[in-house]
Amino acid sequence: MLPTIVIPPFSINLRTILQNKIDQKTKPLGSLGRLEALALQIGLCLNSSSPQLNKPCIIVFAGDHGIAEAGVSAYPQTVTAQMVTNFLAGGAAISVFARQHQLELIIVDAGVKADLVSHPQLITAKIAKGTANYLNQPAMTLKQCLEAIKTGASIVEHRIAQGCNTIGFGEMGIGNSSSATLLMHVLTTIPLSECIGRGTGLNDEQLHHKLTQLHKALKLHDKSLTPIDALACFGGFEIAMMVGAYMKAAEQRMLILVDGFIASAALLVASQLHQQVLDYCIFSHVSSERGHQALLAYFKSNALLNLDLRLGEGSGIALAYPLVQSAVAFLNEMATFAEAGVDDH
Amino acid sequence: MLPTIVIPPFSINLRTILQNKIDQKTKPLGSLGRLEALALQIGLCLNSSSPQLNKPCIIVFAGDHGIAEAGVSAYPQTVTAQMVTNFLAGGAAISVFARQHQLELIIVDAGVKADLVSHPQLITAKIAKGTANYLNQPAMTLKQCLEAIKTGASIVEHRIAQGCNTIGFGEMGIGNSSSATLLMHVLTTIPLSECIGRGTGLNDEQLHHKLTQLHKALKLHDKSLTPIDALACFGGFEIAMMVGAYMKAAEQRMLILVDGFIASAALLVASQLHQQVLDYCIFSHVSSERGHQALLAYFKSNALLNLDLRLGEGSGIALAYPLVQSAVAFLNEMATFAEAGVDDH
Repeated sequence: MLPTIVIPPFSINLRTILQNKIDQKTKPLGSLGRLEALALQIGLCLNSSSPQLNKPCIIVFAGDHGIAEAGVSAYPQTVTAQMVTNFLAGGAAISVFARQHQLELIIVDAGVKADLVSHPQLITAKIAKGTANYLNQPAMTLKQCLEAIKTGASIVEHRIAQGCNTIGFGEMGIGNSSSATLLMHVLTTIPLSECIGRGTGLNDEQLHHKLTQLHKALKLHDKSLTPIDALACFGGFEIAMMVGAYMKAAEQRMLILVDGFIASAALLVASQLHQQVLDYCIFSHVSSERGHQALLAYFKSNALLNLDLRLGEGSGIALAYPLVQSAVAFLNEMATFAEAGVDDH
Repeated sequence: MLPTIVIPPFSINLRTILQNKIDQKTKPLGSLGRLEALALQIGLCLNSSSPQLNKPCIIVFAGDHGIAEAGVSAYPQTVTAQMVTNFLAGGAAISVFARQHQLELIIVDAGVKADLVSHPQLITAKIAKGTANYLNQPAMTLKQCLEAIKTGASIVEHRIAQGCNTIGFGEMGIGNSSSATLLMHVLTTIPLSECIGRGTGLNDEQLHHKLTQLHKALKLHDKSLTPIDALACFGGFEIAMMVGAYMKAAEQRMLILVDGFIASAALLVASQLHQQVLDYCIFSHVSSERGHQALLAYFKSNALLNLDLRLGEGSGIALAYPLVQSAVAFLNEMATFAEAGVDDH
C-alpha cells in the first residue's frame, strides 16, 4: 500500500496579492504574457508573494527495459549504462545544460542492467537489473512497483532536507518511450497510434515494428488496469520512481518542472492517483515525440518551449529553467509605476 | 547617401564541419531540434566551428513620435522619457532580464522629447526632440533619416571595438507600433488590417481609431516609396538607428538577436536594403502583437520563443539569450560518441 498523501490547495488570498503585484509593474498590463501566469503559479506553489528558487535540482532516473530485446529502439540496451557514465563525466546534453544554469544534477540508478561505478552524483537504488519483457509477463511485480514509488519519494525528501524547493525529473532508459506510449494509451484511452512515436529516431519500418509489438503487449494483459497496475505491467523502474517523486514533491509544495514524453507519462500515472499534483507542475517543453503534444492537451497544459527536442534526460527542463528564473526575477525586482514615477494609463 | 556595405556570405566548408560536429555528439541524431540549427547558424555567423559569444550587449534605442498626439497609444508620450529613466535605474523588465543574463545594457536617446540626465549607460544621440507627425508631413527629413542610420551603425562599431560579437536591439517609443505597422504595410504590401495591432493594450474602439489615423496617413503620402523614403516618412529616430545598426552588425559578422514587432519592422527596412542581413539574425520571440507573426512568415523565419510577450525593450532577446548560450554550450562541451564510449546505432 502507498502512504496517504495530501496535496495542499493554493491560497485564494495569495492569488489576489500576486496578481496585484504583477499588474503594478512598469509594463503594459499583461505584456509579459506567459511569464505573468508563470510568476503567479510559482508564487502559489511556493506559497509566497516573493518566491525564491532554492537549490534547484534535476534528478535523472535511469533504468533498463525488458522490451528492448524486441527491437523497439534505434539504440542497443547497453547505451543506458553508457549514458549514465556520460552524464556523470559531464559530457551529455543534460550535463552541459545543468552546468550552464547551476542546476544540481543527480543521477539515480533505478534499474540499469549493469553494475555502475560509484560517483558522488550517483544514487544507487536499483530495484532490479532491468524490468521483465511485458511481451511475456508484467514488467515488474506490484511489490517492486511500490518499492520504486517509495524510493522516488524518499529521494525527493532527501533533496528537501538539503533546502531544495525547485525540482525536475529526467530519465534515461533504452526502450522507455514504449512504456510511456502504453501507459498513455491505457490511462487516457487515446488510440495507440496517436500515442506512439519514433523515440530516439526510428524509421518508418522500425516504427511499424514497434507498433506491432505494443499491440501484441496490449493483447496479453488486462485492459481495465488501475494506474498502479498499469505502471507495474508496462512501466519501468525509472518511471515508477518518477511517479513517487512527483507526488512527494507536490505534497511538499515544491515547484515541479516537467520534461518530455516519458516524464509526462510518469506524471500521468501520478496525476491519476492525485489530480492536484498537476497544480505544482510547469511543463518545460513540448517534444517532437508524437504522443507528447496529445498528452499535454489531455493535461490542458501548454509548455514553455517548443524546440522540436526529443532527447529526454531532463534536457527540456534545464533549457526552460531561465524562463522560470525570469518570472521570479520580474516579480521580485521590477519597479512599480509608483516607484518609478511612470504614468499609468 | 549611405556608404556601400558588403555582407560576407557563409562558408560552405564550415557548414559541413559544423554539421559533422553536431552529429557526433552523444544524442540521437537531430534530437536537440531547433538548438541544432541554431548552433549551425551561430557557427556560420561567427565564422568558427567553436564559436564564443563575447561581451553580449542589448542596445535599446528610444525616441518619440509626432503621431502620438493623434491618440494612437494607450499611454501618454511622457512615458518614453520616464521609461528611459526606469531602464537606467534598473527597474524595467529589460533591466531585470539583462542583469539576469549578464547582458550589457546600453540605452540610446535617439530622439526622446525631453532632456535626459546623463548616465554611464546612456548614449545621447538625439536627432531631434521627437519626429514630426506624419499626419501633417514626413516624420523626418531625408537628412535626419540618413544621420540616424549612420549613428546606429557607429554605435555598433563602438561595441565591436569593445570586443562585442553578439548584439540585440530593443526600442522604446510611445506610438512606435504605428510606425512599424505602416512600414510593414508599405514595404510588404500586406493589408494594413493584418499589420496593425493593439500595441501597449488598445481596446476595440482605440484600435479602430488607430486604424483610421493610419489610413489617413497613408493617403497623405506617395504609395511607391523606397525603403529609405518609407523610413523617413513613417519611421522614428529609434527605428532608423536600428536600421543602421542591423546593417553594420551583419557587415561585421556579428550574431544579431531580433526582438519583437518594432525591431522586426526596422529589420524589414534593413533587409530591403541588404537581403543578407537576415542570415545573421536570430528571431528571439514571436510577439502577440498581431503583425509580428505575419512579418516573421514574410521573413520565412521562426522565433525561438512564443510566450505572448508584447513589451519591446529588447525583453524577448534577453529571455531567449540562454537558448543561444545553450546552443553554443552543447556544440563546444558535449562529448562525442567516440569520446564517451557510447554505442552509436
